[in-house]
Amino acid sequence: MPSQTAAPNILIAAQGSEPRWRDALAERLPGATIVTADEDYAPETIDYALLWKQPEGLVETLPNLQAIFSLGAGVEHLLAARNLPDNVPIIRLEDAGMAEQMVQYHLYAALHFMRDFDIYSAQQARGEWAPHDVSRIAHCRVGVMGLGALGAAVASALADVGFDVSGWSRSSKSIDGVSTYAGHDTLEAFLGEVDILMCLLPNTAETTRMLDSATLSRLPEGAAIINAARGSIIDEADLLHALDTGHIRGAFLDVAATEPLPESHPFWRHPKVRLTPHIAAATRIDEAADQIAGNIRRIARGEGPRGLVDRHRGY
Amino acid sequence: MPSQTAAPNILIAAQGSEPRWRDALAERLPGATIVTADEDYAPETIDYALLWKQPEGLVETLPNLQAIFSLGAGVEHLLAARNLPDNVPIIRLEDAGMAEQMVQYHLYAALHFMRDFDIYSAQQARGEWAPHDVSRIAHCRVGVMGLGALGAAVASALADVGFDVSGWSRSSKSIDGVSTYAGHDTLEAFLGEVDILMCLLPNTAETTRMLDSATLSRLPEGAAIINAARGSIIDEADLLHALDTGHIRGAFLDVAATEPLPESHPFWRHPKVRLTPHIAAATRIDEAADQIAGNIRRIARGEGPRGLVDRHRGY
Repeated sequence: MPSQTAAPNILIAAQGSEPRWRDALAERLPGATIVTADEDYAPETIDYALLWKQPEGLVETLPNLQAIFSLGAGVEHLLAARNLPDNVPIIRLEDAGMAEQMVQYHLYAALHFMRDFDIYSAQQARGEWAPHDVSRIAHCRVGVMGLGALGAAVASALADVGFDVSGWSRSSKSIDGVSTYAGHDTLEAFLGEVDILMCLLPNTAETTRMLDSATLSRLPEGAAIINAARGSIIDEADLLHALDTGHIRGAFLDVAATEPLPESHPFWRHPKVRLTPHIAAATRIDEAADQIAGNIRRIARGEGPRGLVDRHRGY
Repeated sequence: MPSQTAAPNILIAAQGSEPRWRDALAERLPGATIVTADEDYAPETIDYALLWKQPEGLVETLPNLQAIFSLGAGVEHLLAARNLPDNVPIIRLEDAGMAEQMVQYHLYAALHFMRDFDIYSAQQARGEWAPHDVSRIAHCRVGVMGLGALGAAVASALADVGFDVSGWSRSSKSIDGVSTYAGHDTLEAFLGEVDILMCLLPNTAETTRMLDSATLSRLPEGAAIINAARGSIIDEADLLHALDTGHIRGAFLDVAATEPLPESHPFWRHPKVRLTPHIAAATRIDEAADQIAGNIRRIARGEGPRGLVDRHRGY
């Protein structure tokens, strides 16, 4: 039997951030009992599991879950769990401060190419003082792949500062000031008119290696790529090839297929790659805890939670 | 006697860009006669001089000028002209696409520090994958010195994306969403609460070396500096010292006291200096030509021009 609304039992497994999550949740749900995976607890009493890259096999030990919450934007770590119960809702964070951070990251990365900061950085290293004409922001075509909460926020913000923004998603979306494309039949047309491609796709079977030599070749000569979603979406060998032939001008990457990036990986030293260690958008624990506490209260009242994952789509 | 309204005589000296200026002006003032400084012309017939770093002694040869136009945002090259006639209005470009470009440059440079891209760039060079907490944009205090057309546009845009923006100028200004300070008595208070200082001051006797060890020391430990105005405003030796002691975290510089930057200058290789070759805001010839043609028509109608320089203030 589920616990009473006012006194849910919550289990947290969060790769070392458990104390911060526990404090934030305790403040918002004063009646809750909160345990971590390495403490003693009776598995059958746990109502809610709050998980980020949880230990393998953990989920199947919890027979009475009312919901599983992801503590990040992605949910692939949850969907991959062994013996995931069919009837338990999986809930992702909808924003939690991430959209604002994603906007900042993509603004910076887009200006990096549009204003030639990549070129000036190389010139500085050579001691070369050579100004180039400034192109017009309205002539710089930014294409956002993936128009979920984060992609839509990025597309909108980039349009606001003056970029010519288009967006592509699996299903049809509408965003003020952004030309949108939907479905695989429109992908080539979308890619053909993009100077800076931003990848904000979810990580699903369908998006794995979606950006490979075939799709990269559809981009105009000299296009740039920004990926702050998941490393698996880009075929890294194909990207390196496209950088080396010059078809792709540069890549601004926050993610890689293997993280931390292995020491020997060519991205580290590649002159056309700018690399950050998966920092584009970190979950803000206080905002995330607000969302989770709100959803726990909704479920207890018999309402539907926000941010429910469609397991079939994978996000 | 001045020429007729419809047929002004215009002289252009623009460091090699004369053909582009001539075309843009001819299109907008079809009756005008336009010459360049290296062509044959009768000096007494010239009504308007359009100048950018003109040859020394040129201005004093023109006895019948109705106005002198600067072809850039700065006017120090005009005010320094030998025997500059007292009664001729000097007119600067008020924006001409420069505000938009200045906004882009300062957005990029502010995010560079706020989002630790300076740190991640150094980490990439070392092959180090180490994420750091993302600070909140609302906690990042940006201070804009100089609130003319460009400074005000930058302050406003930075506030729009969420930075905590304050501004300082000689005379009192008011900008939505920006706390403003006016006059030298408030300078210390202003500097004391700035994490990222942006210099958008005009180049005058008063602003020369305004940012020296005394003023830099008023900034909080670890503040960053962005200068896309004029190199002379910063004492470069004092800045290098403040970078080396760590008091200043980094400098993002588009200008230097001597340009092109001499080969041996320490800025080139300094790990805390990002350098661009005076490209933050280039004059857009078409927009500038609109302004100049509009002002020539205003003067011919006996109206006051826009962008009139106050020689006493120096801008």
